[in-house]
Amino acid sequence: METLHREKVAVMGSGSWGTALAVLLAENGHDVALWSYRQEEAEAMAAEGENREFLPGIAIPKSIQITWDCEKALTGRQAVVLATPSSYLRSTLQRFKGHLERGALLINVAKGLEESTLQTLGQVIAQECPEHQVAALSGPSHAEEVSRKIPTTVVASSASRAAAERTQGLFMNEYFRVYTNPDLLGVELGGALKNVIALAAGISDGLGCGDNTKAALMTRGITEIARLGTAMGADFHTFNGLSGIGDLIVTCTSMHSRNRRAGILIGQGKSLTEALGEVHMVVEGVYTAQAAVKFMERYHVEMPITRTVYQVLYEELPIQGVMKNLMEREKKSEDLSWHLVTEHQVRWQEER
Amino acid sequence: METLHREKVAVMGSGSWGTALAVLLAENGHDVALWSYRQEEAEAMAAEGENREFLPGIAIPKSIQITWDCEKALTGRQAVVLATPSSYLRSTLQRFKGHLERGALLINVAKGLEESTLQTLGQVIAQECPEHQVAALSGPSHAEEVSRKIPTTVVASSASRAAAERTQGLFMNEYFRVYTNPDLLGVELGGALKNVIALAAGISDGLGCGDNTKAALMTRGITEIARLGTAMGADFHTFNGLSGIGDLIVTCTSMHSRNRRAGILIGQGKSLTEALGEVHMVVEGVYTAQAAVKFMERYHVEMPITRTVYQVLYEELPIQGVMKNLMEREKKSEDLSWHLVTEHQVRWQEER
Repeated sequence: METLHREKVAVMGSGSWGTALAVLLAENGHDVALWSYRQEEAEAMAAEGENREFLPGIAIPKSIQITWDCEKALTGRQAVVLATPSSYLRSTLQRFKGHLERGALLINVAKGLEESTLQTLGQVIAQECPEHQVAALSGPSHAEEVSRKIPTTVVASSASRAAAERTQGLFMNEYFRVYTNPDLLGVELGGALKNVIALAAGISDGLGCGDNTKAALMTRGITEIARLGTAMGADFHTFNGLSGIGDLIVTCTSMHSRNRRAGILIGQGKSLTEALGEVHMVVEGVYTAQAAVKFMERYHVEMPITRTVYQVLYEELPIQGVMKNLMEREKKSEDLSWHLVTEHQVRWQEER
Repeated sequence: METLHREKVAVMGSGSWGTALAVLLAENGHDVALWSYRQEEAEAMAAEGENREFLPGIAIPKSIQITWDCEKALTGRQAVVLATPSSYLRSTLQRFKGHLERGALLINVAKGLEESTLQTLGQVIAQECPEHQVAALSGPSHAEEVSRKIPTTVVASSASRAAAERTQGLFMNEYFRVYTNPDLLGVELGGALKNVIALAAGISDGLGCGDNTKAALMTRGITEIARLGTAMGADFHTFNGLSGIGDLIVTCTSMHSRNRRAGILIGQGKSLTEALGEVHMVVEGVYTAQAAVKFMERYHVEMPITRTVYQVLYEELPIQGVMKNLMEREKKSEDLSWHLVTEHQVRWQEER
């Protein structure tokens, strides 16, 4: 490993992911502050040396400064990791931004979309903090596994190469490999929209469907995400990467995934409210589905799986109708190369 | 559903997949012969009304003619499903071909590569039976689930659109959706090479790695498969479809996957021979790995996961070295768009 460049980093948000990343950054040798929005939570973590609610069993190094005071958390920190639920991101930034150090790099690790403005989280951050560089860290990375040092790979993305490489340098270690990717929009969209597909995968599991069914949902799920993403200006290839299909796979197959677990409960016949109560943590896909339907309309793109999930959550589509909706009836050609016509297709068209 | 065109179909091979497809075709109303290469197996299936060895618990309709006589199986059959292990395909065809009806469509459902000739199975069939049209049926479709009528989607592929659509018509029903795809080479390569990645995924599981690790292996696995496939002339987009990432996902995540199960045993420290003995059925990836390494060399393409699996199987790479091999040490940019330079990358290059 190259010699470490020790940085002063603030991690804003102490859910499972924020806590796991704070621990990782401290183990990488950085000087870390971990901010919790609730005083009692911050005090409990400091007293107990662990986050019993969201990341039980993982020791929080004593070197981490745990606080609920955002001024204390941010003062002197040149890198700020944003780990709040996406629906609180803007209000949290508005509260924070007066305390940000000049030139501090903002690294978003939340995954979602802002429904009211139809902005990605990166766009929300850029709007609220226009003088700061923005990066995102995304990929198949359940907090529970990262905190157990299980080999994990993610991408660091930013419009600025320097910002992406700085993010890579902060987080990278022997069990946490960070690749850079220049397509921030694609990275953000993959991370956000995959949670809706994970709800569909959970519903499929809850209905008693199989591995064949779920693999089909994932395959067609990433295709519809890429269809919206490219319409918005993202690179098609990003969706083939760690922050696209990689994150989608882990979210649809792992029991660590809260979106999938909520979907399973809904597939078993529970209401949305009951499912959310049982999962206990924030289920981002439930909010992202609302935003995604608006994005679809704005960009004139159809996303049948996402729309079906929305209909189940908000329009009382009976759960029994879901698979029928998704297993289309007409005989079709596989619709993969919708953005270009391949040589093989031309040959087939000539045959017609 | 449109009115059914009843066909006379032979299914050559009575493993789990051949048996499941014979049952499905009979339920679709076709007149089906199921051929087993062993007399005693054919007789046991006929007497017991099920394939106790490879597909226990699934009734074989009495309308299916079970036979070990290939002349009897093939006479009068205008569609022939080839469901033999890939390593026996050529010898089986050589034995059969004198009995094939003129113009019979050959539909391959096996997944592999012929190492000695570096041909795909479609190429083997075309070489042995040059006067017949060739199609392939592939996708995320474990036999155990298809035979339980669990919603499944696959692709039917052929250089001939008519042949692909005829294959689609034969198999399609309400729980088994068939899409056509014109890229036979891409469909075959995805189906064959994914078994090697599934061995890697199993090894990762056997070593105690997590969902994060396996999602990364799948993401990078389909990328290396696509890299070889496009070098050979397949369409890039096929690897994003059901026969590419879809089949890869199901093979890497399902306990129905024999390739994954063999990998788990190897990851737990068993020898290849022990693992194959325990899995009992043919583990195609073990043979495909040998062919894949030769393909890589011929087409000057690097496939690090596939090569690592080969080294474990045939070159005594210690199992502890596997994850080290796969988690590269250098800081890297995500290498997805290797076949084109994106707008975002150009911007980054200018920044450098």
